[in-house]
Amino acid sequence: MHPQGILETIVYCPDLAAGEAFYRDVVGLAPFQRMPPRHVFFRCGEGVLLMFNPDVTSTEQVHVAGSTLPLHGARGPGHVAFRVPSAELDDWRSHLETHGVAVESAIRWPQGGESIYVRDPAGNSVEFATASIWGLSEP
Amino acid sequence: MHPQGILETIVYCPDLAAGEAFYRDVVGLAPFQRMPPRHVFFRCGEGVLLMFNPDVTSTEQVHVAGSTLPLHGARGPGHVAFRVPSAELDDWRSHLETHGVAVESAIRWPQGGESIYVRDPAGNSVEFATASIWGLSEP
Repeated sequence: MHPQGILETIVYCPDLAAGEAFYRDVVGLAPFQRMPPRHVFFRCGEGVLLMFNPDVTSTEQVHVAGSTLPLHGARGPGHVAFRVPSAELDDWRSHLETHGVAVESAIRWPQGGESIYVRDPAGNSVEFATASIWGLSEP
Repeated sequence: MHPQGILETIVYCPDLAAGEAFYRDVVGLAPFQRMPPRHVFFRCGEGVLLMFNPDVTSTEQVHVAGSTLPLHGARGPGHVAFRVPSAELDDWRSHLETHGVAVESAIRWPQGGESIYVRDPAGNSVEFATASIWGLSEP
């Protein structure tokens, strides 16, 4: 048995308002559910990016239809990568500069493809990368 | 500007061997890069699941083609969800039982769809869910 893919990717961000501004305005994701101070959820391609405040999700029980959501909540810098077309990399660099987001590192991978790394307001390492870094074709 | 989707989803697991056994044998993902004690990488649908040992990735600099990979590494229970077809949910329950993996919670969402929650060896909350919980159609 194996899953069809990843449905939910998580980032933890104690300051939800700052996190929402970053993932909405800089990354360009559409928020579709907002429940401060617990979470803001975004659609992204064929899945969702769930941004949680770990102070809430690690301590407060949520009950749904007679069941309980498992507690979770990590601390410290996590990591996520977004898929961008190689033809848009220069536009992403300009876009990040326009928003005052510093590029921490940029890598041209020996196997092909490129990555650009920035930080979100919680200090998570956020990467914009071409699918070719993993040998995947661009959709 | 917006990305095409999520390319890399991360889980942190200090015990890489235990983590690899779980994501390979229980979740059913194919490992394609193994660099102990730092990481094991898995393919999953149109993206990758990267399992890192945070003790290494938060402290040890890695240089690639003259650039430096940003440090990262979160502690405590994270969360990830895998997309499974609704027709396979019963098979997943049997599969988890066969592997001795306890179901921590199971939810039939009011908006439709179902989720089954277990824990990986690092204590991360791992969910198997139908796409319909987010209003997405099954591929």
